[in-house]
Amino acid sequence: MEKLEMLYEGKAKKVFKTSESGTYWIEYKDDATAFNGEKKGQIAGKGTLNNEISAIFLSLLKEKGLDNHFIKKISSTEQIVQQVEIIPIEVVVRNITAGSLAKRLGWEEGKELPQTIMEFYYKNDELGDPLINQDHIAILGLATEEELADIRNQALKINEILNEYLLNKDLILVDFKLEFGKSPAGDIILADEISPDTCRFWDAHTKKKLDKDRFRRDLGNVEEAYQEILRRIGGSVNV
Amino acid sequence: MEKLEMLYEGKAKKVFKTSESGTYWIEYKDDATAFNGEKKGQIAGKGTLNNEISAIFLSLLKEKGLDNHFIKKISSTEQIVQQVEIIPIEVVVRNITAGSLAKRLGWEEGKELPQTIMEFYYKNDELGDPLINQDHIAILGLATEEELADIRNQALKINEILNEYLLNKDLILVDFKLEFGKSPAGDIILADEISPDTCRFWDAHTKKKLDKDRFRRDLGNVEEAYQEILRRIGGSVNV
Ligand SMILES: Nc1ncnc2c1ncn2[C@@H]1O[C@H](COP(=O)(O)OP(=O)(O)OP(=O)(O)O)[C@@H](O)[C@H]1O
Ligand SMILES: Nc1ncnc2c1ncn2[C@@H]1O[C@H](COP(=O)(O)OP(=O)(O)OP(=O)(O)O)[C@@H](O)[C@H]1O
Ligand SMILES: [Mg+2]
Ligand SMILES: [Mg+2]
Repeated sequence: MEKLEMLYEGKAKKVFKTSESGTYWIEYKDDATAFNGEKKGQIAGKGTLNNEISAIFLSLLKEKGLDNHFIKKISSTEQIVQQVEIIPIEVVVRNITAGSLAKRLGWEEGKELPQTIMEFYYKNDELGDPLINQDHIAILGLATEEELADIRNQALKINEILNEYLLNKDLILVDFKLEFGKSPAGDIILADEISPDTCRFWDAHTKKKLDKDRFRRDLGNVEEAYQEILRRIGGSVNV
Repeated sequence: MEKLEMLYEGKAKKVFKTSESGTYWIEYKDDATAFNGEKKGQIAGKGTLNNEISAIFLSLLKEKGLDNHFIKKISSTEQIVQQVEIIPIEVVVRNITAGSLAKRLGWEEGKELPQTIMEFYYKNDELGDPLINQDHIAILGLATEEELADIRNQALKINEILNEYLLNKDLILVDFKLEFGKSPAGDIILADEISPDTCRFWDAHTKKKLDKDRFRRDLGNVEEAYQEILRRIGGSVNV
C-alpha cells in the first residue's frame, strides 16, 4: 500500500489517500490545541503515544464486536483506517462531572453522575463547536432520527466496554468525545481516535489527571501522563 | 380578594400572595433587561401593554382548550393567576431563524425553518440560562421524561394556535419562550407571560420587528411596537 496525497491536515492528525481504495492513511502529530484553538502547543511524543493508544482502544472495541474504522498500525505515528464520511457531530459521553458540563450546570468537578450523559456538539470550528439538540441535528441535516439512535447506542456500548476495561487498569473514564462516519455501504461506524486528547482519564485512587487537561490547565508532566496511560493499557513505550 | 406580601420580584414582574389560596397576584413592570441582565432600561407603558397582551393570548389559549395559569386581569398592570411551582426550564419554540439560533448554527436571520425547533434552557440567571438537553434535564431533576413529553406537546400546540391566530393579524410568530409550572394537583400547565418581551413578532409584509429586539438592538420606537401588537390583537391601548 502506498501513501498518496494529503487530503486534510487537522489539529492532531493528517489524513492521506492511499493506493488502496476505501482506506485512509492517518498520521498522528505532536501538535496540541485547546479552547477551540486559542491555546496552541506541542506535546513531545504525543503522535507516537496517541497512535498506539488509539490502536489499542479501537482494536479492543473490534474484539468486543464494535466495528470501527481501524485497520492496522503501520508505523510509530501512522495507522491505516477505513475511509468514511465523517458526520460532523462530536458525541460526548460523560460519567463524572468535568469541564464544560460542570460549568453548564454549576456543579463541581468530580461528581459521579446519576446516569450517563450524552451530548452532541456541532463539529464546526468557526462556530466554536456549539452544543446542539436533536432538532438542530435534524434541520442541519446531520443525521436522521434512526442514525442518531444508532450513534447513541454505539456510544453507550463503547462507554460500557471502555469503562470496564479501564477500571481493571485502575483508571476512571470521566468523559470522552467520539466521531462517527458513514461507510460507503451506508453503515455508521466509529472513526477518528480514542486517546488522552479525546478522553478524560483519572487515576482511580489518587484521581490524578492523566489526559489533555494537564496541557489545558498547565499542570505539567503532560507527556508522562500520556505515557502512563499507554503503560497501563499494555502498550510499549518505545519513543 | 386582597393583595398580600410580595413573594418575588423578577426582571419584568412582581409576584404577590393573595388572600385566596392557590392564586398569585402579578404586577407587570416597565423594566426591561436583555443579554442576561447586562442591558437594563425601561419601556414606558410596557407593564400596561404586556399585562393586556398576555391576558389576551392566555385567554385565547384557554378558549382553544389549552389550560394555563391565567385567571383574570384586575387592573391595567395586574392580573390574578393560578399559583404553580415553576419548572426552571425556558422552553423556546422557533419557526424562523433569529437570535441565538442564527448564531449557534451560523445561519442568517429570517430563514423559515424546515421544521419547528424546540430548545430547553436551564432557567438560572447565575449560569446565564444555558442550553440543556434531555440528559441534563434528567440529572438536574427538572422534569421526568413523561413531564417533558407533556411540555413538548403543549408547546407545539401553543405554537399552532398562536401561529394561526397571528397570521390572521398579519403577524409572523418568529419564536417565543414559555414557562410551565406544576399545579398543586400535579398537572403541568403554562404559566408566566406571552408578550413582546417573550416572543419575536414580525410584520408579515414589511418584516418589521414588533418586539423586544427593538430594545435589545436599539432600533427605536419600542413602546410603539408593543402598542402595535396590542392594537392588532384587538386590545384597547388606554395608557
Ligand atoms: N476514518 C476516517 N475517514 C475520514 N476522516 C476521518 C477518519 N477518521 C478521522 N477523520 C477526520 O480526520 C480529521 C483530522 O483529525 P484531527 O483530529 O486532526 O482533526 P481536528 O483538528 O480535531 O478536527 P477538524 O480539523 O476537522 O476540526 C478530522 O476532521 C477527523 O474527523
Ligand atoms: N403562576 C405562577 N406561579 C408562580 N410563579 C410564577 C407564575 N407565573 C410566573 N411566575 C414567575 O414569576 C417570576 C417573575 O417573573 P419575571 O418575568 O419578572 O421573572 P424573570 O426576571 O424573567 O425571571 P427570574 O427573575 O425568575 O429569573 C418568574 O420567576 C416566573 O417564573
Ligand atoms: Mg480531532
Ligand atoms: Mg420573565
